[in-house]
Amino acid sequence: MENSAKNGIELLGAKTGNCIRAAIALEEVSATYSVRKIRLHSGEHKTAGYLDLNPSGQVPTLIDHNQGEQPLVLAQSNAIIFYAAEMQPDTILPVSDPRERARALERFFFFITDVVVPSNTAFLLERFGDAAGAAVLYQRSIAALAVAETYLGQHPYMAGDRFTVADIPAVTIISSMSSNIDWSQHSLLNRWYEQLMARPSVTAGMHAFD
Amino acid sequence: MENSAKNGIELLGAKTGNCIRAAIALEEVSATYSVRKIRLHSGEHKTAGYLDLNPSGQVPTLIDHNQGEQPLVLAQSNAIIFYAAEMQPDTILPVSDPRERARALERFFFFITDVVVPSNTAFLLERFGDAAGAAVLYQRSIAALAVAETYLGQHPYMAGDRFTVADIPAVTIISSMSSNIDWSQHSLLNRWYEQLMARPSVTAGMHAFD
Ligand SMILES: N[C@@H](CCC(=O)N[C@@H](CS)C(=O)NCC(=O)O)C(=O)O
Ligand SMILES: N[C@@H](CCC(=O)N[C@@H](CS)C(=O)NCC(=O)O)C(=O)O
Repeated sequence: MENSAKNGIELLGAKTGNCIRAAIALEEVSATYSVRKIRLHSGEHKTAGYLDLNPSGQVPTLIDHNQGEQPLVLAQSNAIIFYAAEMQPDTILPVSDPRERARALERFFFFITDVVVPSNTAFLLERFGDAAGAAVLYQRSIAALAVAETYLGQHPYMAGDRFTVADIPAVTIISSMSSNIDWSQHSLLNRWYEQLMARPSVTAGMHAFD
Repeated sequence: MENSAKNGIELLGAKTGNCIRAAIALEEVSATYSVRKIRLHSGEHKTAGYLDLNPSGQVPTLIDHNQGEQPLVLAQSNAIIFYAAEMQPDTILPVSDPRERARALERFFFFITDVVVPSNTAFLLERFGDAAGAAVLYQRSIAALAVAETYLGQHPYMAGDRFTVADIPAVTIISSMSSNIDWSQHSLLNRWYEQLMARPSVTAGMHAFD
């Protein structure tokens, strides 16, 4: 691992969807953080030092050096998104309105469990040489976007009138699937997507690990 | 759908892992709720009435009739777990201690994204006739349990000294994989599992849709 300043918040990762989602969340709440690139190709995520931080040997990992004596070390991209969201309460994760909060959680989980993880799983199957299995999962993930279209029929963002945690997995996964989407079937999604891709936090997060 | 009392909290679902997780969370916070069984075999989850509640046409769905004029309708098992947890703040989802909260979220997401959803995806591939692809995913899910064993080396529950949201997906998925687990490699998990299976909320949740 690189030497790095042991203060503030560090985000350890590489240019992958899971890491980019965490970076977008940090950008969105204007957190001050530094990026530490983990070289997956040389197996840096399987070294003893990294496994101490993240026993799954995966990226991303966040280290917050501002939490007293011992740094707070956090694995799991989605836990990092919540951690970031709660640095600035009631911004990207609604707090005061229970309906708005429920909606944001519902749609966040829709994207994570019904689109992002199945797509990541498809990618894995492809690497194992199971192209047919991968295709089944990709097709399901794309079909699920019909539900996202119904969300956008109700309001401009995935969970209401403002950007929330739900928009984060939505934009990263749609960006990675974009060439396989029949955009003529998804006009609301198309408009939302163009707007999101121009959003400063999204642009910054997508380039955080360049 | 069945006629049912339009008050209190209703949990619509069937006897599946996703629905049982939601029921365990409601049990754990001692919520008063009624169960409405959705007949998946006769396609009740694809009827217009149900799709209005849950545009994915999946179970579970929660309806809270105690939220003013309009009932609050919530899809996504994991959003329901958070909703239940937040009915009784600082019980199964820590609030006051930021480290404890971060840990609970980290481990909750570990189980959901690295074990539960990949296993559900494997089940789906099996139904599509892709036994080889399913086996790859099941093996990865089982291998991931080594990480759970490291969690339990630190404290008696998945995220600390008390039961949290992290223990919920852990117990349902381990229960469904139990015959494929080499328990001799997982002694801490084994002790934890026996204790969890005797926990009243877990027993009640597992039988909520009988
Ligand atoms: N559930 C984890 C998954 C993390 C994950 O799968 N990371 C991938 C890159 S996107 C990784 O580190 N892969 C390397 C490996 O598994 O060896 C999260 O959301 O953080
Ligand atoms: N991400 C959703 C997934 C729900 C889900 O997959 N439900 C299954 C049963 S466990 C279902 O309704 N399957 C019927 C179908 O997809 O047609 C959740 O966590 O609630």
